Amino acid sequence: MDYYPAPGRNHLFVPGPTNVPEPILRAMNRSNEDHRSPAFPKLSKSVIEDVKQIFGTTAATSFIFPTTGTGAWESALTNVLSPGDKIISFLIGQFSLLWIDQMKRLNFDVDVIESDWGAGADLALLKKKLSADYAHSIKGVCIVHNETSTGVTNDLAAVRRILDGARHPALLLVDGVSSIGALDFQMDEWKVDVALTGSQKALSLPTGLGIVCASPRALEAAKTAKSLRVFFDWADYLKFYKLGSIWPYTPSSQMLYGLRASLDLILKEEGLHNVIARHHRLGEATRKAVHAWGLKLCTQKAEWNSDTVTAVVVPSHIDSGDIVKIAWKKYNLSLGVGLNKIAGKVFRIGHLGNLNELQLLGALAGVELALREVGYPVTLGSGVAAAQAHLQRATPLITSRI
Amino acid sequence: MDYYPAPGRNHLFVPGPTNVPEPILRAMNRSNEDHRSPAFPKLSKSVIEDVKQIFGTTAATSFIFPTTGTGAWESALTNVLSPGDKIISFLIGQFSLLWIDQMKRLNFDVDVIESDWGAGADLALLKKKLSADYAHSIKGVCIVHNETSTGVTNDLAAVRRILDGARHPALLLVDGVSSIGALDFQMDEWKVDVALTGSQKALSLPTGLGIVCASPRALEAAKTAKSLRVFFDWADYLKFYKLGSIWPYTPSSQMLYGLRASLDLILKEEGLHNVIARHHRLGEATRKAVHAWGLKLCTQKAEWNSDTVTAVVVPSHIDSGDIVKIAWKKYNLSLGVGLNKIAGKVFRIGHLGNLNELQLLGALAGVELALREVGYPVTLGSGVAAAQAHLQRATPLITSRI
Amino acid sequence: MDYYPAPGRNHLFVPGPTNVPEPILRAMNRSNEDHRSPAFPKLSKSVIEDVKQIFGTTAATSFIFPTTGTGAWESALTNVLSPGDKIISFLIGQFSLLWIDQMKRLNFDVDVIESDWGAGADLALLKKKLSADYAHSIKGVCIVHNETSTGVTNDLAAVRRILDGARHPALLLVDGVSSIGALDFQMDEWKVDVALTGSQKALSLPTGLGIVCASPRALEAAKTAKSLRVFFDWADYLKFYKLGSIWPYTPSSQMLYGLRASLDLILKEEGLHNVIARHHRLGEATRKAVHAWGLKLCTQKAEWNSDTVTAVVVPSHIDSGDIVKIAWKKYNLSLGVGLNKIAGKVFRIGHLGNLNELQLLGALAGVELALREVGYPVTLGSGVAAAQAHLQRATPLITSRI
Amino acid sequence: MDYYPAPGRNHLFVPGPTNVPEPILRAMNRSNEDHRSPAFPKLSKSVIEDVKQIFGTTAATSFIFPTTGTGAWESALTNVLSPGDKIISFLIGQFSLLWIDQMKRLNFDVDVIESDWGAGADLALLKKKLSADYAHSIKGVCIVHNETSTGVTNDLAAVRRILDGARHPALLLVDGVSSIGALDFQMDEWKVDVALTGSQKALSLPTGLGIVCASPRALEAAKTAKSLRVFFDWADYLKFYKLGSIWPYTPSSQMLYGLRASLDLILKEEGLHNVIARHHRLGEATRKAVHAWGLKLCTQKAEWNSDTVTAVVVPSHIDSGDIVKIAWKKYNLSLGVGLNKIAGKVFRIGHLGNLNELQLLGALAGVELALREVGYPVTLGSGVAAAQAHLQRATPLITSRI
Repeated sequence: MDYYPAPGRNHLFVPGPTNVPEPILRAMNRSNEDHRSPAFPKLSKSVIEDVKQIFGTTAATSFIFPTTGTGAWESALTNVLSPGDKIISFLIGQFSLLWIDQMKRLNFDVDVIESDWGAGADLALLKKKLSADYAHSIKGVCIVHNETSTGVTNDLAAVRRILDGARHPALLLVDGVSSIGALDFQMDEWKVDVALTGSQKALSLPTGLGIVCASPRALEAAKTAKSLRVFFDWADYLKFYKLGSIWPYTPSSQMLYGLRASLDLILKEEGLHNVIARHHRLGEATRKAVHAWGLKLCTQKAEWNSDTVTAVVVPSHIDSGDIVKIAWKKYNLSLGVGLNKIAGKVFRIGHLGNLNELQLLGALAGVELALREVGYPVTLGSGVAAAQAHLQRATPLITSRI
Repeated sequence: MDYYPAPGRNHLFVPGPTNVPEPILRAMNRSNEDHRSPAFPKLSKSVIEDVKQIFGTTAATSFIFPTTGTGAWESALTNVLSPGDKIISFLIGQFSLLWIDQMKRLNFDVDVIESDWGAGADLALLKKKLSADYAHSIKGVCIVHNETSTGVTNDLAAVRRILDGARHPALLLVDGVSSIGALDFQMDEWKVDVALTGSQKALSLPTGLGIVCASPRALEAAKTAKSLRVFFDWADYLKFYKLGSIWPYTPSSQMLYGLRASLDLILKEEGLHNVIARHHRLGEATRKAVHAWGLKLCTQKAEWNSDTVTAVVVPSHIDSGDIVKIAWKKYNLSLGVGLNKIAGKVFRIGHLGNLNELQLLGALAGVELALREVGYPVTLGSGVAAAQAHLQRATPLITSRI
Repeated sequence: MDYYPAPGRNHLFVPGPTNVPEPILRAMNRSNEDHRSPAFPKLSKSVIEDVKQIFGTTAATSFIFPTTGTGAWESALTNVLSPGDKIISFLIGQFSLLWIDQMKRLNFDVDVIESDWGAGADLALLKKKLSADYAHSIKGVCIVHNETSTGVTNDLAAVRRILDGARHPALLLVDGVSSIGALDFQMDEWKVDVALTGSQKALSLPTGLGIVCASPRALEAAKTAKSLRVFFDWADYLKFYKLGSIWPYTPSSQMLYGLRASLDLILKEEGLHNVIARHHRLGEATRKAVHAWGLKLCTQKAEWNSDTVTAVVVPSHIDSGDIVKIAWKKYNLSLGVGLNKIAGKVFRIGHLGNLNELQLLGALAGVELALREVGYPVTLGSGVAAAQAHLQRATPLITSRI
Repeated sequence: MDYYPAPGRNHLFVPGPTNVPEPILRAMNRSNEDHRSPAFPKLSKSVIEDVKQIFGTTAATSFIFPTTGTGAWESALTNVLSPGDKIISFLIGQFSLLWIDQMKRLNFDVDVIESDWGAGADLALLKKKLSADYAHSIKGVCIVHNETSTGVTNDLAAVRRILDGARHPALLLVDGVSSIGALDFQMDEWKVDVALTGSQKALSLPTGLGIVCASPRALEAAKTAKSLRVFFDWADYLKFYKLGSIWPYTPSSQMLYGLRASLDLILKEEGLHNVIARHHRLGEATRKAVHAWGLKLCTQKAEWNSDTVTAVVVPSHIDSGDIVKIAWKKYNLSLGVGLNKIAGKVFRIGHLGNLNELQLLGALAGVELALREVGYPVTLGSGVAAAQAHLQRATPLITSRI
């Protein structure tokens, strides 16, 4: 049953939830099973182990919570920090804002470093603050790797260099919700202490898993962290990991089989390196289209360009919400609206997850049509052509078909 | 399990099998059931009755065979004709050729009216032959409504006018495999005696149902037709229709539930009139793209343009098969090859079934990329832009979303 | 892919997760969709509203959390209570124990009323404590409606009578994880303030939804409750309910479509009253089988009999875990083990969710075989016969088939 | 959407269509794909090759027709015989009757050897006829391996011995619709010339594939056989086998992926030998139950007992159709009715396909309840107990779980 049926496929170009490919739908098409049977730990261990590859870690411990990204945030914070702890966090868009709001409600002492929406984290200011913090009163640095509302990717390697340069022991907590599994992520190399993502983004699964990886240092911190947590407590998971039954409460077998299929697609069939290259290719193509349309990115500098979502600024006389509406009403194209202070000013094209070149080109053609509908005089085909030109050069043969 | 996995969706633009939309996949996602239970006739009767709407008939009787289009052909011919019967048939492409081949093997005396591949049926010659047939020795006229290999749609109303003009009693048999459910089809108005289609085309189902509609005259003819048939015999169906158990042998419940879902999509959700308009819109858009690319249609005159498949002629130094290959290998785009005597000379873009504007535009963008790969100097975006321009004008708001 | 494949169906008779019927699997067999589209609130509102029927409430507000029962517990407690609040809770088995453990970790002052595992809540003691609490220092009474580990159902109407008799204003919080949707539950009549369940039990869905209903009094209490909560905060939901976008973070569309299908099965197709009667019938049949086997229920008195799970005590020389193991290894039958202090002493037969008489009889036959395997001299067919005798009398014709 | 919904699983115990297990449903849960892509021959060749294992042949050539068993019959007959050919066929029940009817309509000269319904083929008479046929005017012997209407399995090895003993060159054609993949079948050893089955029986697939295997001798005979065939002509398949594109017309990709999954379950996961042993075990258990009920098998001698279907004779004052009706109306149990001359006199329990012990025991319990409903004084549990006793002895541990 569909509430607003339309012929053909929905073109899902919000920056998550993303398209669920058939192999994942197939893997999930199953009844429940007994999570206490011997079969279950086999499945569980395989995904708990393999999911670490998309985080770029062998050293960390992963926790797969039956929750969303918001729950994963809460798990990350409460397991390593104590109420009153001073933390630095960057406000660069709606999702960093929401995380900061959560931090405050969890009673941390948040030093918010704000940037324009469209800019990346102000790392110069971070450097200054860390350098000045001789007492190491700053317990954590929290950063969103990819700000989904503005299409801004922060440079985590640089954050690590700043922490190391200041010889500062603060924990590094990273929201990788719209990056991990799509963008290069090196948890071990960047010495990220807690990283997290959600299932409905790069993994192309339904919503329902909040995946958190904790470095050995984070696990150590968890032992003394005083924030209250029960459902989100890593300690319960660690206890059941030891027991071999893995789960402190009933997991979703469907989601775990789905995760297994997703990891197989990413790690075995396509290869993580190729997945990341594909996201870069699609991101570049999208940006070239935006340029050809004569529009500007919300992202203020190329160094912050996001390969998973592109936020496009519309001329001031146009309401970006109208573009999103007409795209859905006429072309069955789902775009992202502008959120909060950039509502009406930007629309967003998500290009992450299990997605390919022609799907993107179809969507870009749809954006052009929607732009025309709201009165923006785009040259039809212009963005598509620019994207095509890039893709022609950048797209390799499909590995399995060479 | 996929043999040649690739990220993202397969872009299925062969002229059948077509994309199976999620509501149909959902309807079919079920175990077997007892076809002798009281539930089964309810389902069966509903589809046997409603499927007639896409044939444009209330007078005819429908038969849903567990077979393919080839089987439906055989059922159509053997139920109304006798060995040695003289019939006229038009050879205008690969599928009419295959049907004629079947006619010959079934021992009919086939008078083949051949046209160039790319031309429609030579109706002038038909007129002449019928007019000359004072003895009414011609028992049937067999015509493919839409020749899938060349993208040619024949004018069935004109055929009827010729038959009526000649006051000729020959039965009119129509292959509507790639037309019925997508193109306007008026079985009653055109006094078609036998019309048939297959499930994997406009109905967007898996292969497996060959659907045949027989006019009252055809049913009458069936009583005396001497062609041998058992599996494909209408009489067995008619017997079980009367008994209320409908099926002379075990049907596929999954396919019937799928057909029910397909008919709901076409007749209730979108509306048959809108479905046909959508096919016309997508057909026009495709032809405009071909023109913009500087290429020619295989279809020789606009009156024969097909709204379900477009066959594109490539320059003589290019092998159209290479376009199809690279589209699949690099862009996960499935196009139709040229068949038989036009192999290497044309490729085909199917645009039928449950499909929308942006899916088509993505595919057209893919064709442009494939053309470039084989050295044809297409201007990227040119065909997309031409198609977009048409679609912008011709596409209505999605009914459920107004 | 299955880790321990076996021919035929798995006989899933753990007391949750339960069998997911085909209509729910079909409803969930879909890709992601944009949760910000106009379609989403339609679906969301329908389930948020209709789910209240299985709670027996029109007055309460429902919250559908992407979590498990454990998360629902946390949401229930933290939204209406403050740290240090004195609450009474009943320890009668493993799940009440786990909830109490959570209460303690959440810093409530829990007065635990313990019973034997197999007995119900000690309501006499509750009465005494409430009567003595002139100061109304007790802020909440927390009770598990149906203790899944022992097969004990508590009498909630009696609890309400005691509270009312004592004119005590304590909030009444009820874990209905293995009861709501299967047992009679009258939230409004019993003046339950917070009731909760999980999707993988009576609703026959995958794990992933923790559903909490809050009475007007509970909502009022939530305004001043000082327990820290963010992910589980009702206030965020209430804010988005008002805005009409419903969800403070991304929901699982698949689970919501599944919930819609589940509610349709329960409320429309079978009827809640019939669902409850069916559970009673299956529970009685199971208990008659246990008696015929010469075994004892863990449940100590008939008044506490559970219609969703039966815990069976095995003779002391037998390890109940061996029964569970051999049932799975030889007959693909999944039974529940004994938990914690009754490990090895009881095994459990879950009989809740979308399940019918012959499924149960097959499982009872399997239990008999497993009992024989471990050396218990059960008469084959004895329990089945006892259950059959009851079912023959108690089972009505299937409503749709009369 | 279900027409007569009922809680819990349908207990499908008709002798086909059979239960489709989840791995097959998952494999089939997919959109269409281009059958001309390079992926398709890979899949096609794998199933064309592997399906021969369930026929017990390496020498034969297999043809997978998009049809039903009835179509497979027609394909078998028309490819190796010519009109007027004298053939011997055995009439022992409804399905042999229907096949004979088809033979007559196809203009063969059928010498029908009739037996009581419940008896096997009269092989003594066959011997006599063959021995007397010095001229070798008998071109074929057609036999149903397992007569689905009466639960009678014929001894094919004996048939071969008789043919060999008489040094008679008649072709041996076998209907294995309800046997192949469930009963021991040795096409090569028994020198069967044409054997056939349908997908909805032992293979546990939906209806839609008619699978025919032809021995080298049969292929040779096909070269000169004069029966008219087009859709069912092996020659077209052989042509496309050589070309490597395999299919003369569009196949169902879903059914082929399903067949791949089915063969994997049978050949790899369980093992064909174990599958056959399981069917024997379930058949024996069912027969022991019938005996315990005080009822008689339709099968007249033990040597003809069928391990895929048991036909049970009811006392003369009972209408077996009432048993089938009440089983469906009250217990969601689907049994087979008596067909044709044994209508009302027998009901049938199918026990083939992907099925296990406890599923069968649940169904047997249901049969007992249905028997009581129609007034037959069965002792509840008696048949279940008899079946259990057998299964306890005969059932091995599940291979993957040892």
